[in-house]
Amino acid sequence: MDCIFCKIVKGEAPAKKVYENEKVLAFLTIGPISRGHLLVIPKKHFENIFDIDEDYLKEIIFATKKISQKLKKNLKADGVNILHASGKDAQQSVFHFHLHLVPRYKNDGIDTWPKSNYQELNFEEVTNKIKE
Amino acid sequence: MDCIFCKIVKGEAPAKKVYENEKVLAFLTIGPISRGHLLVIPKKHFENIFDIDEDYLKEIIFATKKISQKLKKNLKADGVNILHASGKDAQQSVFHFHLHLVPRYKNDGIDTWPKSNYQELNFEEVTNKIKE
Repeated sequence: MDCIFCKIVKGEAPAKKVYENEKVLAFLTIGPISRGHLLVIPKKHFENIFDIDEDYLKEIIFATKKISQKLKKNLKADGVNILHASGKDAQQSVFHFHLHLVPRYKNDGIDTWPKSNYQELNFEEVTNKIKE
Repeated sequence: MDCIFCKIVKGEAPAKKVYENEKVLAFLTIGPISRGHLLVIPKKHFENIFDIDEDYLKEIIFATKKISQKLKKNLKADGVNILHASGKDAQQSVFHFHLHLVPRYKNDGIDTWPKSNYQELNFEEVTNKIKE
């Protein structure tokens, strides 16, 4: 399987690693939207939120919390965003599960809130459908 | 403390609940950007990723996975985005920890990828600083 993130895990492709444990690796993205923008990934290949094992998912979110604290302390970030896509129709581009962890800084001019014209006409129907 | 999400947890404010367990509640957001857009929150009050207990964080991400599968199956979502903000400078607006879970649909026209002009000039320096 020709997965760039698996290659990074195996040391076959370079990456600026900032955190690592038995199950998780975090490294700077090559296309940062802010200073310190990084990716948190499982060391085992999973494609998305639909197929990832809970063992790995848990370690990813714990690492994300730990690194967020480091971003605040060491980079003086004022906040963080977590962004994730599962599925090409959700704008996933590398098909190895990853969370984007984006440090935010006062007046950085970034807007992470997506615009949409969607209007919900029937909240009741949607609720019942999800719960089916 | 006058927290709207705490009120929803206590049943003192209305919400369209789609999932609930001992530690976690998920309900439709009142301002959806797509059909089925919902929030996953801890039942106990934490402000953000910096202060939330791991016990709750774990249950939130597990619930997010479970609900993602329901969105795919029951709403025929083609993918999902997870969005989160910690800190007002990261565009957090309600100061009770929450993940946005946004179902995505083929050709829905939504763009969840933030635009930025940031260019990293020194990846090495940033890496070392985070690891300090």
